[in-house]
Amino acid sequence: MVTSLYVGRFQPFHKGHLHAVKYIANRSDRVIIGIGSALESHTLRNPFTAGERMEMILLAIKEANLPLTKFLIIPIPDAPYHKSWVSIVETLTPSFDVVYSNEPLTRLLFKEAGYEVREIPLLKREVYSGEEFRRRVINNENWREIVSEHIANFLVTKGLIDRVRALVSTDKPK
Amino acid sequence: MVTSLYVGRFQPFHKGHLHAVKYIANRSDRVIIGIGSALESHTLRNPFTAGERMEMILLAIKEANLPLTKFLIIPIPDAPYHKSWVSIVETLTPSFDVVYSNEPLTRLLFKEAGYEVREIPLLKREVYSGEEFRRRVINNENWREIVSEHIANFLVTKGLIDRVRALVSTDKPK
Amino acid sequence: MVTSLYVGRFQPFHKGHLHAVKYIANRSDRVIIGIGSALESHTLRNPFTAGERMEMILLAIKEANLPLTKFLIIPIPDAPYHKSWVSIVETLTPSFDVVYSNEPLTRLLFKEAGYEVREIPLLKREVYSGEEFRRRVINNENWREIVSEHIANFLVTKGLIDRVRALVSTDKPK
Amino acid sequence: MVTSLYVGRFQPFHKGHLHAVKYIANRSDRVIIGIGSALESHTLRNPFTAGERMEMILLAIKEANLPLTKFLIIPIPDAPYHKSWVSIVETLTPSFDVVYSNEPLTRLLFKEAGYEVREIPLLKREVYSGEEFRRRVINNENWREIVSEHIANFLVTKGLIDRVRALVSTDKPK
Amino acid sequence: MVTSLYVGRFQPFHKGHLHAVKYIANRSDRVIIGIGSALESHTLRNPFTAGERMEMILLAIKEANLPLTKFLIIPIPDAPYHKSWVSIVETLTPSFDVVYSNEPLTRLLFKEAGYEVREIPLLKREVYSGEEFRRRVINNENWREIVSEHIANFLVTKGLIDRVRALVSTDKPK
Amino acid sequence: MVTSLYVGRFQPFHKGHLHAVKYIANRSDRVIIGIGSALESHTLRNPFTAGERMEMILLAIKEANLPLTKFLIIPIPDAPYHKSWVSIVETLTPSFDVVYSNEPLTRLLFKEAGYEVREIPLLKREVYSGEEFRRRVINNENWREIVSEHIANFLVTKGLIDRVRALVSTDKPK
Repeated sequence: MVTSLYVGRFQPFHKGHLHAVKYIANRSDRVIIGIGSALESHTLRNPFTAGERMEMILLAIKEANLPLTKFLIIPIPDAPYHKSWVSIVETLTPSFDVVYSNEPLTRLLFKEAGYEVREIPLLKREVYSGEEFRRRVINNENWREIVSEHIANFLVTKGLIDRVRALVSTDKPK
Repeated sequence: MVTSLYVGRFQPFHKGHLHAVKYIANRSDRVIIGIGSALESHTLRNPFTAGERMEMILLAIKEANLPLTKFLIIPIPDAPYHKSWVSIVETLTPSFDVVYSNEPLTRLLFKEAGYEVREIPLLKREVYSGEEFRRRVINNENWREIVSEHIANFLVTKGLIDRVRALVSTDKPK
Repeated sequence: MVTSLYVGRFQPFHKGHLHAVKYIANRSDRVIIGIGSALESHTLRNPFTAGERMEMILLAIKEANLPLTKFLIIPIPDAPYHKSWVSIVETLTPSFDVVYSNEPLTRLLFKEAGYEVREIPLLKREVYSGEEFRRRVINNENWREIVSEHIANFLVTKGLIDRVRALVSTDKPK
Repeated sequence: MVTSLYVGRFQPFHKGHLHAVKYIANRSDRVIIGIGSALESHTLRNPFTAGERMEMILLAIKEANLPLTKFLIIPIPDAPYHKSWVSIVETLTPSFDVVYSNEPLTRLLFKEAGYEVREIPLLKREVYSGEEFRRRVINNENWREIVSEHIANFLVTKGLIDRVRALVSTDKPK
Repeated sequence: MVTSLYVGRFQPFHKGHLHAVKYIANRSDRVIIGIGSALESHTLRNPFTAGERMEMILLAIKEANLPLTKFLIIPIPDAPYHKSWVSIVETLTPSFDVVYSNEPLTRLLFKEAGYEVREIPLLKREVYSGEEFRRRVINNENWREIVSEHIANFLVTKGLIDRVRALVSTDKPK
Repeated sequence: MVTSLYVGRFQPFHKGHLHAVKYIANRSDRVIIGIGSALESHTLRNPFTAGERMEMILLAIKEANLPLTKFLIIPIPDAPYHKSWVSIVETLTPSFDVVYSNEPLTRLLFKEAGYEVREIPLLKREVYSGEEFRRRVINNENWREIVSEHIANFLVTKGLIDRVRALVSTDKPK
């Protein structure tokens, strides 16, 4: 049985993430989706809470008719130091065999810890990215095409689009 | 739709916990099972990691034929201060309507935060408790009857019974 | 001008504390009352929040007709390490000349940091202590004589006596 | 009785802050002035300690003949996560009814926690701001008109203007 | 080349520790002596700072005529969670091949991380222990025979014996 | 006997650092080399672990034929707040008489704590700096002339040059 780990911040969970999840699910018996920087929220870079991000992932899995029982969705807080991060992932998740990631630091840390790390084919990275999503929300451009329909509705209904816009002018760092 | 929250440390997940989970599931559309003190492990009081405890919960749900998709299992790290703990639960989980707990501090904190808190009928508390489990493991008494068969096998196979016994003589606090 | 520092946990602020505050006020132009372990609350040892303890101190100063403008009441969180604690006090308070304390560790740390540390004459320590107060509350004995009348009323009205009793049976450490 | 909360970093406490304090005091029986980022100091953005900022606030209240006993000045350390910040404010302060703030994140967090949040009319924001103060100090322009006379003297006497200038060339982040 | 790791709290560094260090040095090209709980001090259990403990180790190595250049003495702060502790040791030290320890938790964590862990023959454990040292200091019994002569003099001269005695009556936990 | 303290981040330990160490060693009986931001690693600004930096310092001391027993090399983690940093240095190191530093914040904090702080003559700062080293590594320019030959070999052999290059494209902050 192959268990794969896929960690992202999912701010928000967009079509590129869904593409990756499908790709990994096709190659695994079980997929652990780690919600990174889980305790961060209410900043421009990390506007949504881990609970809100988990709701989005559940909506996307359902909307895409993926088998829900194949997935474990687990919030992963940041480590105080990069060198401890892998141990925090390991303690919070069932054990896994392969790590899927394109993020250089994530790849580096898991490789130094002895894991097999695989690339994920990217889907239209210039559109499907959290940064592009936040840019469009702030500039009132078409952010809806970046996420699934159900997630778009969720973001509006819960007032989360308004939250992103309110956070633009804060002077608090992080 | 009623979403319920049930937080425990599950060191280990025993038959009393399963009894509570069934009771809550019968009264809820969705049940969030929060794994408390999620980052603690390798102590006598908290021998198992959150990942190991999640495996046990998944085994128990499967063994009891409960509908897996009704449950969200979410690790909840301790807050640095009790008064912040509810906010940490709220940020890590989808929103919930009711809290089930018999633990006095948990009840107090959620009540002060404005939540409805309900009691859970206990099942043979003098046997089905983490403390009694750990006591029996250490004294080589019958700990198997406290957990489900699959969990008992999991604990032995993964070397977790040995870990509890090794931790007896440590002089490191916590 | 002489500024004095007096740090206590004030769980609760009792007649012994008031006695000490009067003694120090008579020997100082300004008195900084530091509320120690400021972020701890909702434990048997530290049941009350810093805000609740500040309310008690304000009630006691008023009830005793002490000149309010002579006092600064400042919450002081615990340091991660004892050796940093004096620096945390120094950063949170205006500068001070003398420290009043009978607590051995407090005395040691301030002396090692070069401060003059003075003893405070104790008033009926066997009755006027936070530990004795909590013991009496739990055992339904006469706790009212340990605090001023206004503080006793405050504790009852705000439900804080009930909180102490609820905390007796928690199994959460700290 | 109406208790209002006003939180700022007060780096330094300038004429705009004093204007806001007067405005709030006219609408409240008690004003809690929270010194935000209380444990930060010795950075360009946060050069002064909470104790130094408290001295400035006390000087300003006295200089403006405001009734000192109406105010509680309370240092508020940053929360590890934004979503816990309101709970840290609540634990450190007596309870309050209204929050005065123009800062978007502060407004957002208190609104999500259920508080009434009110705007404060700003006084010459392009001059009366901590950023402009620090800019002028560094460039040897007229920073004195931004703060009250007593605060200006305090800053010079205590060597705090020199501290701001020394911090310009540090390469330590934060 | 064989590099060995030996971690202890060394409160204080006693003759049993020196015995272990000699044993390990005979089997290694390089010995990393990790001073555990490095940031703890001023408690009965951990009275001495890491700097003071380093001085003691240097005195003992010199007194015993061991080759100083064979040793690296490195303070190791506690990890926030046991499961991260090995990663903190690894980040603070040059890489090592073998771990020497009799402490069950230390052994467990290094074994789970894949290290070879070896036992150390103990020397009169009932006398040569930090606990026994502290007990004798407090009760005015013969503590001098537990440490080397130079360390005994160091402890007296620096006022550290007085510190242990002062800490007996503190009511601050940890 | 004069003990001097010299703290740097040593990312990496370059010829400018060696120049400073020689200068200080000539004026001291003992030199404490503090490895600052000791727990940071795997970022562009702090690519190397404290253990890797300690190896580099040992190589440089050996290569330059400096008397190893004159030096104590001690990792110093960052303090949570600048105002506590000096207390963390003091607790982790044997006591020292003089501080050598050109860094404005370091100078400020030690001066405020009452220490004598001395300047160090810089050697070709435009070349011998960690920033310039990292810039050259990333741009494939001549970084070897910035460090000693043994350190250059160490960096290549241990894969640390590759690590710096991998970290260029991470989107993780810090």
